[in-house]
Amino acid sequence: MTGGHGVGGFTTLAEFRALVAMAGGVDAGARQAAEDRNAQLTKPPGALGRLEDLAIWYAGWRGKARPDLSRPQILIFAGNHGIAARGVSAFPPEVTAQMVANFRAGGAAINQLAKTFGASLSVHALDLDRPTADFTQTAAMTEADLLAALRAGWDAVDPAADLVVTGEMGIGNTTVAAALAAALFGGDPADWVGRGTGVNAEGLIRKADVVAQGLARHAGALEDPLDVLRCLGGREIAAMAGAMAYARLLRIPVVLDGFICCAAAAVLQRVHPDALDHCVAGHQSAEAAHGALLALLGKAPLLSLGLRLGEGSGAALAIGVVQGAVACHSGMATFAEAGVAEG
Amino acid sequence: MTGGHGVGGFTTLAEFRALVAMAGGVDAGARQAAEDRNAQLTKPPGALGRLEDLAIWYAGWRGKARPDLSRPQILIFAGNHGIAARGVSAFPPEVTAQMVANFRAGGAAINQLAKTFGASLSVHALDLDRPTADFTQTAAMTEADLLAALRAGWDAVDPAADLVVTGEMGIGNTTVAAALAAALFGGDPADWVGRGTGVNAEGLIRKADVVAQGLARHAGALEDPLDVLRCLGGREIAAMAGAMAYARLLRIPVVLDGFICCAAAAVLQRVHPDALDHCVAGHQSAEAAHGALLALLGKAPLLSLGLRLGEGSGAALAIGVVQGAVACHSGMATFAEAGVAEG
Repeated sequence: MTGGHGVGGFTTLAEFRALVAMAGGVDAGARQAAEDRNAQLTKPPGALGRLEDLAIWYAGWRGKARPDLSRPQILIFAGNHGIAARGVSAFPPEVTAQMVANFRAGGAAINQLAKTFGASLSVHALDLDRPTADFTQTAAMTEADLLAALRAGWDAVDPAADLVVTGEMGIGNTTVAAALAAALFGGDPADWVGRGTGVNAEGLIRKADVVAQGLARHAGALEDPLDVLRCLGGREIAAMAGAMAYARLLRIPVVLDGFICCAAAAVLQRVHPDALDHCVAGHQSAEAAHGALLALLGKAPLLSLGLRLGEGSGAALAIGVVQGAVACHSGMATFAEAGVAEG
Repeated sequence: MTGGHGVGGFTTLAEFRALVAMAGGVDAGARQAAEDRNAQLTKPPGALGRLEDLAIWYAGWRGKARPDLSRPQILIFAGNHGIAARGVSAFPPEVTAQMVANFRAGGAAINQLAKTFGASLSVHALDLDRPTADFTQTAAMTEADLLAALRAGWDAVDPAADLVVTGEMGIGNTTVAAALAAALFGGDPADWVGRGTGVNAEGLIRKADVVAQGLARHAGALEDPLDVLRCLGGREIAAMAGAMAYARLLRIPVVLDGFICCAAAAVLQRVHPDALDHCVAGHQSAEAAHGALLALLGKAPLLSLGLRLGEGSGAALAIGVVQGAVACHSGMATFAEAGVAEG
């Protein structure tokens, strides 16, 4: 069984690791051509600010000096977590499945945002009736579970998409993401946990305690980032990582969402430092540690509007910014075409 | 001759002033109903951050608990300025008319953004062959000129629009906006001028000097904000003010653009402190004093992406954020509808 649509499939973690570390991606010629074009467009140099950088980055990844952006794809992965039984969320675990039904019925925030920005949306519920193990007791996933989740994400990417957003749903998963970040980057567990869906002060303390217990339980097994993901992660987080990795091979730029999505991204960055070159940070969420995580990933967010919902919602909102950037770049007239003096 | 589509026209500055000061606008019942609805949507309370505030604000102005946003309108006003001859821009004055032609041909950034977000776009060239007077010598406009420009903006608003963006083009107009801000709010002219389209250090000094000369020339005539606009302003800036004022009477929310747009807005705010309650700041531009001006207007920007183009471009990009906010608010299922536990 191989992941992917015939391109770069994998059957082992070693193969996945090798695919993440594969060099290349950006088309240097297309990127240069996009820079040259940008300098000729009817605006003062630099006047479109980050939109210019975004468009040039996008052009490089798409391999076209004047790219389109017409097929954004939003992928939602859902998973359940053993540690949800530890009182780390303001919502009960059955909400994961209830929200999956809501996504499928079109009633969630992400459905409205997908419609607003013309994105396709697919929902992938990953063994919801089989939560990961409580990571304070044992590894969250077996290697087979991890591989299956990575492949679920990998296979979900549409090779015809021209932008990908990965979102998630999983009661308890801000605690999982905090554990991943703490294992990958160090630091006090209390600095990595946040309010999530809205836990109170005691909930916060429980979250930090659960993370600390997880780190202690798996101490010595956390050198390799894929082991970190297996011991402390979750299926939806592994699936996001798989989708991001395959998008890079397909040269499809990715818009990162919030804290949980960025924890998945962080695993890839630890596998290979270039693994996120095709990713832009869609937003900075209100989850306490997201800003610190973005800084460690070297990503400046496009938006900062206090969202903390997950579901890919912040990244979906940022699709509009990327669409605007690409539309300006590819659609504007040059000074010569428009007969405008260059100053 | 009256401005407007039969609603609240004016023939004198006193009548315009009275219309700006007219009370009301927000439908308190619709706003409350929107707040109640927001509390029932399938998300943790507050998890959509500023999108929730935006949607409730929008609902109040539109008078509907569950509003649509399907007819955004972008208005571009262009004017020429006597002070352009003073070396205050990196571009020659003929670029104003050239860019108007570019807008009409669809080649500018704003055309691409209008298309991206489904907005209508109209371009209003205001007596380009008759620049305003050099305000260091005499008043920029006569009262008749000012009234005509305010009416041009007022008349340009489509009463069927459900969101308005006002943009501008006018070589030299960051200096004009700096003069307006300095006259309305005080402070050192050097703190209000910026690089505009890209002047060098000497250009910056010239801009501050021109502003200082203008303030000195009209000292004693700058108590009334509409006199400030007449003495130091420009036709495109007055037209933006006229459009914003009429949008408020029509209960159409406005997304503010950059420094020049906000200088127009500031005139209205000085006429009446509630005059901008229907406005949200689309973005903070890279023009040096825009952040200070936004703070004085009491507006927090939705975006901050280093744009400094004008044309309504930053506000147009923010249309996507408002669309996303309204789509979530009006389209999401409630907990009861979706059968999701409320936590």
